[in-house]
Amino acid sequence: MIIDCHGHYTTAPKALEGWRTAQLDAVATALRSHDPSQLSISDDELRESLERNQLRIQRERGTDLTIFSPRAMAMGHHLGNEQASLEWSRICNDLIHRICGLYPRNFAGVCQLPQSPGVSPKGSVAELERCVKELGFVGCNLNPDPSGGHWKDPPLTDRWWYPFYEKMVELDVPAMVHVSGSCNPNFHATGAHYINGDTTAFMQFLLSDLFKDFPTLRFVIPHGGGAVPYHWGRYRGLAQDLKRPPLEELLLKNVYFDTCVYHQPGIDLLVKVIPVGNILFASEVVGAVRGVDPQTGFHFDDTRRYIEGAPGLTAADRAKIFEGNARSVYPRLKAN
Amino acid sequence: MIIDCHGHYTTAPKALEGWRTAQLDAVATALRSHDPSQLSISDDELRESLERNQLRIQRERGTDLTIFSPRAMAMGHHLGNEQASLEWSRICNDLIHRICGLYPRNFAGVCQLPQSPGVSPKGSVAELERCVKELGFVGCNLNPDPSGGHWKDPPLTDRWWYPFYEKMVELDVPAMVHVSGSCNPNFHATGAHYINGDTTAFMQFLLSDLFKDFPTLRFVIPHGGGAVPYHWGRYRGLAQDLKRPPLEELLLKNVYFDTCVYHQPGIDLLVKVIPVGNILFASEVVGAVRGVDPQTGFHFDDTRRYIEGAPGLTAADRAKIFEGNARSVYPRLKAN
Repeated sequence: MIIDCHGHYTTAPKALEGWRTAQLDAVATALRSHDPSQLSISDDELRESLERNQLRIQRERGTDLTIFSPRAMAMGHHLGNEQASLEWSRICNDLIHRICGLYPRNFAGVCQLPQSPGVSPKGSVAELERCVKELGFVGCNLNPDPSGGHWKDPPLTDRWWYPFYEKMVELDVPAMVHVSGSCNPNFHATGAHYINGDTTAFMQFLLSDLFKDFPTLRFVIPHGGGAVPYHWGRYRGLAQDLKRPPLEELLLKNVYFDTCVYHQPGIDLLVKVIPVGNILFASEVVGAVRGVDPQTGFHFDDTRRYIEGAPGLTAADRAKIFEGNARSVYPRLKAN
Repeated sequence: MIIDCHGHYTTAPKALEGWRTAQLDAVATALRSHDPSQLSISDDELRESLERNQLRIQRERGTDLTIFSPRAMAMGHHLGNEQASLEWSRICNDLIHRICGLYPRNFAGVCQLPQSPGVSPKGSVAELERCVKELGFVGCNLNPDPSGGHWKDPPLTDRWWYPFYEKMVELDVPAMVHVSGSCNPNFHATGAHYINGDTTAFMQFLLSDLFKDFPTLRFVIPHGGGAVPYHWGRYRGLAQDLKRPPLEELLLKNVYFDTCVYHQPGIDLLVKVIPVGNILFASEVVGAVRGVDPQTGFHFDDTRRYIEGAPGLTAADRAKIFEGNARSVYPRLKAN
């Protein structure tokens, strides 16, 4: 079985984006209401948006189950305000829940959180609990920068985040550390802000005793861990210079990397330097890069090929990357 | 011959830091003067600071010439104000000039620029010209984020920077894109801000026609290009999706990567995916990581070993990486 731990609902019917635009207009003008009931998307529309895209690709590439969350770019925590973020999160999460109901063998839900710049992560506890307990979700996406490229909130290792982590631990669900869009013109979203967010979060973890306080807290760092595996020597060396414990001891019981690295040499490096138990298969389909690599004739994001092509992996290693590690990190998957 | 294109004067006598502290105090209080003549460092002090450090390491590792600039972390463009940044830059650059005079075979100068958040890069033109024409420097370090982790100035591809690029082109000197310290608690300087700066700059270049406007403008992206080579498939795919030209055509006549990647698998990836003509040897000694890698018994930043150990490189390739490419990118090196 192949579990893809990183898929977003990037192909939602236009009505969803339309509702969001209307909502943000309403927040900006404070004139119009933005009633969730104004959004109407039929099951047929959901099916169509998936059959042509994620489900087709699952079949074509031979993957089985996608851990599926709302579109990351559209979370837009820096837009609107706290209340708008809560309503928008509930709408997006409810759509994911409906999709998991329509295709329970193909999708497991991960929720967007109602984060907002400067607002305590306590405000996300209730939505996490609703999604896990009522909707059967298996994890969440946590945005380390709700300001959208201005990095105004405290680091992920600050006690600011602890009330949220307490709930994650209680529910035994991991978070993928995933920024949303960038409103800073310096940062292209998928080309810079995403990757920087991953690198930044890892270094925050390296400096902190967060996992002493929360020994069972688990994070997946997407996009192959940002720059981290490529600079693994730098991070081992920084930890050593800073008198931190070795990375294995400091954070590799709590921090995992996905395989959204879109060429063979990158995956080869990832599986060479990161312990196999810390790597979770993912493709982020339909996501940041949609074209065919002229060098291979296959889609850049067809990451299964790279895992299968990586030298040095045994069948048991691949089974861990494709399924076993995801089941450990997302224990609520067991029903699937 | 081996040219290390990325060394900072991180080992300056304490008097330098003391002068800077006094200067910043003076700016803050507007009470005390901060006269450059109050700084006194003898040639013997300069020699001692280098003989025990950079020169010892050059000898031990068999490298010949270091392209040498003031300490990047200490540039601190976000501190003080424009005038303080100018005085501080001149002091730091003058020290580099003295060092190049003491050891002309070992060091070639690269200057710090008097950047300041929100201040036009035009303000750096005169200091670049002074350093190149009067002090014989061969390049400069350009900070893409003078705000120190808040990323408040325009992207490097904005016309905001064009007056400075015009001078770079006129003088035929490259810039290393190098951030300074971070005053944003989210970003550890050498573990996150540096690497993010590299990744960010590359993506800015990918999106822009900057090199159509300046066909001979040259940038070195340090720290192995941040996350870029590890995600080379992502960047090739993003360029393709965005209808940009292939990267070779779009920017590889203008953008170069150094080899400050502190483990063998990282360098193996770098030399595999990036054309050999775009890679410049560097170690950033004495720099971000100072310890010995327990896995190899050698210093993490002893990058010569990785280049020599990388499979697939011919003697001619290594000669380019060690010397030839640096001579092309830094043509003013020819006197050395």
